[in-house]
Amino acid sequence: MAHTPAVETQAKRRHDPEVRGFASDNYAGAHPEVLAAIALANGGHQTAYGGDDYTGHLQQVVRSHFGPYAQAFPVFNGTGANVVALQAVTDRWGAVITADSAHVHVDECGAPERVGGLKLLTVPTPDGKLTPDLIDREAYGWDDEHRAMPQVVSIAQNTELGTVYTPDEIRAICDHAHERGMRVHVDGARLANAAATLDVPMRAFTYAAGVDILSFGGTKNGMLFGEAVVVLNPDAVRAMAHLRKLSMQLASKMRFISVQLEALLARDLWLRNARHANAMAQRLAAGVRTVDGVEILHAVQANAVFARLPHDVSERLQKRHRFYFWDEAAGDVRWMCSFDTTADDVDAFVAALREEMGRTP
Amino acid sequence: MAHTPAVETQAKRRHDPEVRGFASDNYAGAHPEVLAAIALANGGHQTAYGGDDYTGHLQQVVRSHFGPYAQAFPVFNGTGANVVALQAVTDRWGAVITADSAHVHVDECGAPERVGGLKLLTVPTPDGKLTPDLIDREAYGWDDEHRAMPQVVSIAQNTELGTVYTPDEIRAICDHAHERGMRVHVDGARLANAAATLDVPMRAFTYAAGVDILSFGGTKNGMLFGEAVVVLNPDAVRAMAHLRKLSMQLASKMRFISVQLEALLARDLWLRNARHANAMAQRLAAGVRTVDGVEILHAVQANAVFARLPHDVSERLQKRHRFYFWDEAAGDVRWMCSFDTTADDVDAFVAALREEMGRTP
Amino acid sequence: MAHTPAVETQAKRRHDPEVRGFASDNYAGAHPEVLAAIALANGGHQTAYGGDDYTGHLQQVVRSHFGPYAQAFPVFNGTGANVVALQAVTDRWGAVITADSAHVHVDECGAPERVGGLKLLTVPTPDGKLTPDLIDREAYGWDDEHRAMPQVVSIAQNTELGTVYTPDEIRAICDHAHERGMRVHVDGARLANAAATLDVPMRAFTYAAGVDILSFGGTKNGMLFGEAVVVLNPDAVRAMAHLRKLSMQLASKMRFISVQLEALLARDLWLRNARHANAMAQRLAAGVRTVDGVEILHAVQANAVFARLPHDVSERLQKRHRFYFWDEAAGDVRWMCSFDTTADDVDAFVAALREEMGRTP
Amino acid sequence: MAHTPAVETQAKRRHDPEVRGFASDNYAGAHPEVLAAIALANGGHQTAYGGDDYTGHLQQVVRSHFGPYAQAFPVFNGTGANVVALQAVTDRWGAVITADSAHVHVDECGAPERVGGLKLLTVPTPDGKLTPDLIDREAYGWDDEHRAMPQVVSIAQNTELGTVYTPDEIRAICDHAHERGMRVHVDGARLANAAATLDVPMRAFTYAAGVDILSFGGTKNGMLFGEAVVVLNPDAVRAMAHLRKLSMQLASKMRFISVQLEALLARDLWLRNARHANAMAQRLAAGVRTVDGVEILHAVQANAVFARLPHDVSERLQKRHRFYFWDEAAGDVRWMCSFDTTADDVDAFVAALREEMGRTP
Repeated sequence: MAHTPAVETQAKRRHDPEVRGFASDNYAGAHPEVLAAIALANGGHQTAYGGDDYTGHLQQVVRSHFGPYAQAFPVFNGTGANVVALQAVTDRWGAVITADSAHVHVDECGAPERVGGLKLLTVPTPDGKLTPDLIDREAYGWDDEHRAMPQVVSIAQNTELGTVYTPDEIRAICDHAHERGMRVHVDGARLANAAATLDVPMRAFTYAAGVDILSFGGTKNGMLFGEAVVVLNPDAVRAMAHLRKLSMQLASKMRFISVQLEALLARDLWLRNARHANAMAQRLAAGVRTVDGVEILHAVQANAVFARLPHDVSERLQKRHRFYFWDEAAGDVRWMCSFDTTADDVDAFVAALREEMGRTP
Repeated sequence: MAHTPAVETQAKRRHDPEVRGFASDNYAGAHPEVLAAIALANGGHQTAYGGDDYTGHLQQVVRSHFGPYAQAFPVFNGTGANVVALQAVTDRWGAVITADSAHVHVDECGAPERVGGLKLLTVPTPDGKLTPDLIDREAYGWDDEHRAMPQVVSIAQNTELGTVYTPDEIRAICDHAHERGMRVHVDGARLANAAATLDVPMRAFTYAAGVDILSFGGTKNGMLFGEAVVVLNPDAVRAMAHLRKLSMQLASKMRFISVQLEALLARDLWLRNARHANAMAQRLAAGVRTVDGVEILHAVQANAVFARLPHDVSERLQKRHRFYFWDEAAGDVRWMCSFDTTADDVDAFVAALREEMGRTP
Repeated sequence: MAHTPAVETQAKRRHDPEVRGFASDNYAGAHPEVLAAIALANGGHQTAYGGDDYTGHLQQVVRSHFGPYAQAFPVFNGTGANVVALQAVTDRWGAVITADSAHVHVDECGAPERVGGLKLLTVPTPDGKLTPDLIDREAYGWDDEHRAMPQVVSIAQNTELGTVYTPDEIRAICDHAHERGMRVHVDGARLANAAATLDVPMRAFTYAAGVDILSFGGTKNGMLFGEAVVVLNPDAVRAMAHLRKLSMQLASKMRFISVQLEALLARDLWLRNARHANAMAQRLAAGVRTVDGVEILHAVQANAVFARLPHDVSERLQKRHRFYFWDEAAGDVRWMCSFDTTADDVDAFVAALREEMGRTP
Repeated sequence: MAHTPAVETQAKRRHDPEVRGFASDNYAGAHPEVLAAIALANGGHQTAYGGDDYTGHLQQVVRSHFGPYAQAFPVFNGTGANVVALQAVTDRWGAVITADSAHVHVDECGAPERVGGLKLLTVPTPDGKLTPDLIDREAYGWDDEHRAMPQVVSIAQNTELGTVYTPDEIRAICDHAHERGMRVHVDGARLANAAATLDVPMRAFTYAAGVDILSFGGTKNGMLFGEAVVVLNPDAVRAMAHLRKLSMQLASKMRFISVQLEALLARDLWLRNARHANAMAQRLAAGVRTVDGVEILHAVQANAVFARLPHDVSERLQKRHRFYFWDEAAGDVRWMCSFDTTADDVDAFVAALREEMGRTP
């Protein structure tokens, strides 16, 4: 149910708050507890740019999740978090080894290159996940001035394909990278979903596994906006505040990002939201498996279901429920669940899918 | 009065919502009507990245203020707005003529240079305001490949020094720039305050004066976060959506920036907030003028008062009310009023100032 | 006749001018006719930065090779030529589609990304050559702001693997790119070698095939230093002089690059040098084919021979003649011939190869 | 003895080697001893990219001039040298304090900003020279993330205005900068002229004065092309080879830059050239002082004479001898002498000046 303001606003409601789809977890709005936190932090004056009491307190919240040295730098969005984090662990001559399906490569309009001057060395992967062997395809030539120097391995947890690394897999990557003098960055736009899947604390596959720096995603986990660069290894970075500012990711009224992060992380909202989204994806996958002719493409390990079905079916289905093609030529689609997806939403969608499949000659 | 959430949150209030100061208009929180607008836009799914109904509607709201061709591109913050806007009207070889007191030069950690590759050609000014003559100090050498090509004049309305351009002054700048093949950008982080001072529509000194592109400030006018690049002359720009994305200023849940802008701009909240802040600055200036030994430095034309007073007085006063030195060596300070500054706040501050001045030997 | 220096210098000869190897065509020095041209252009004063008589005359020389609209912009080196050329045909939001073996991707330490803010979209190829089908793997999503906009296809003639495109192949690429609104750039660090192989004028596979812009290589063709960005389609570019300057590729004493290019291109030195290097590569390949156990890897179409042989043989051979591993793990090596490689050099090398192969147990 | 080419070239002489002017020291060609050195280094194969014997030997030559830790990194041109050097001593968040007349600010088309992402903090000076007091106008705010962090002071020796710092002045700047955690860079495009003026070794006002890094100019001192970044304090830098490459300043046939530098620096050619150019400037200044109505503007301390005279006289004079206006509105001109300026050139110019002044009504 939508939150009901007691104050009149001159803006008008322009959408139906009961309509949801499977297009993306950022089509959802904010969790009501998040909005309540913002209201709580409102009023009075607080030092701008992070000198406020909420950002101050956030540091200990973040340390409870990410280890004793963790430092949180709230930022606006995921691209911003990634580009700030990757700049923090590279020199002007550095390069980033990452999967060729990585968000930093395919979905950020070149921001890593253009804002950070970063060179990306991309590696094809079967399922979005890097391994030490795959990393080695690009991990060489540190002394060769003709080659951008590999300085950081960037992985996503979970990946763009909805797959999840085990803590051991991440530890192996970190060990491998560190032995070669490289840092490890995790794009955690959906880190909470991975923790829910693995059923371990987030620390287990970040700080404890050796990760140096992290983009922690809030928006897809129910925030209005906002993410955080979380430094796990302070020895790996310098001048983070300057880097965030020059990357145009410094919020003046930062208390409002920090209090949202607190709302998620202080106790268990982050986990409730993630578990719910994941459960809905499992329900969806289970339903889809009962429909003949639809193939599920990757292991369903988080809140995404990738499937292959006839193109005309997808097109008819899209008129009833919002979702995206992933690889239109192949007939692949992506169905995302979010913190506010309901069991009814899923069941209705599966029913519609079954119906449209039945209409195929 | 603070908004009272009906939902429990796991975050806690950590500040006193009754404490305000004169440090900056971004020390304030969000206006309650703005929070109400956010709540209204919450719930359900809306297309991410600007495909939502609020961003769609925002376009006509913006055209009502900024002329028939205006297009709004919501972004996160002021530095982001400025750097997106300046990139939009320059080529790779372009330069920006601006005052040496401009925010883009002194307060953005080099983001224009580092993110946009922009060269700034700065001009000293007596009061933060450029004129055609001042512009001409850097407006030459377009054909000289050794010189970064002046392609845009960037002014701030109001300026960093709290001064305001008249519509005629801006028109003269635009005519001068356009005759030389340059565009004009306005950094309008406090545009509403200027309109309140001039008592004319914002269009009168932007679109009608010939301005090509604008950073419209929401945060300092009572928003939680968010600004907009407003293109007034669509012929001057291309690929704005790409530019915003690569500059890491594309919000996924954009509806929540757009509905805040709607809350400000749909009717008169923007103007109420600005008028109030300006009135508080006038009240403050009037009070200060009754205190011997304190000099007011610039015309008080918006919501800032710049003053010169003994350094020790400032230091004692800062222990009672928050504010910043502007030029510590000279003893200059800046006192900012905001939408939530009260007459009592001002009166108490003037009383404290009088008291501390009296203690000076 | 050339200027005859009978001048003492305080520098000393420090190398044996009779020792040559197969490491790279840029291990060679300058062709004597090139040095004679420099001497000819010396003395007196000539306008700096390209206003000299040699750079003026170069324009018509270049048009005789590259079509009626060709404009030459001399630069210092190949990376510079590529990065200036690619910036010239992209916007801030543009991306470059290129082979994953391309020099711009693997050998320029990220200069395209760092200097030009360019995003590279790389495609694996069997032989270093792109095709319309391979281009299509990355040629999509022009309207998607999350994706760097593909604006240019960059091919190398000949490729890093020593393979050569036919004029028809390049024409097909240009047609394909142009239909999609993209430009075509040719990295012609060894363009002369390709022309020698194809036995057609350079125009046939550049201007006449629809190429928009070109990096013409002089250094590997016998110059002391210097290349040229050659604009074939002036409608595709703006402000080239500014781009060259901001990319730090503007030579003050440009007459000395231009006169070298004239020495190559005025009549036939470019072709003599290229034909000779190619012929030496053919002689080398023929010799290698007589040695059991050595596999030649790609079609030998220019001045490079790629081969696979036992790693220990390569290591022993490298002690006798300089050359590089190409893929050390696979045992692949690259042998380059240059304008000054002699038949005796080749024969001695083949004899040494045969000898070392014979020592393998 | 130098290599004697008796070689025909297909290029043609297109200029009169007896015509010289006063436009710039880079209108001159190369000193014959420099060309002889190039011929000497030609022939045979030498490792590319600086692995050659000439670049190896250059290191000890450079240490003899610039102190025991000096490392030379040959580059193509002055802008390249400056931008590589400044990147070497700054982080991504760094800023450069420099005079507002500095070449890096006014004559490099924004290359420091665009290639290096450098923020320039410029200070007006009376004579092109910084002082500790002038530096302090911008040397503050290291902890303020809104401010680009001042990390290096860049001075030019001699300055763009032809003035020369004493060793003590430079030492004072270095001490001042170092105490504040900043490095010092010297743009030494005409460093040799300053040494000739001061009549001290170059070390006296660079290494011995505390300078960290240097752009050493070769082109204006008689080279065909080429400069060197000289690192004086190796602790201040990392990965210089990578920085040079990514800045597109890595020459493949580097032996030919290095041998030119050797020709200058091995014994005294650098000093002979500089002394001669300076002496010609003194002769010119002395002559000019005998002409009524022409004002010499700055101390003539190197090879430049700045003067003020009636605009129409300058225009008529320019038809007889090449030179540039410096500030056309003010009637200021710059006359440069170079290594090949003759006493007859100067005397003829003074005579022409006298004649044209006499024609003024």
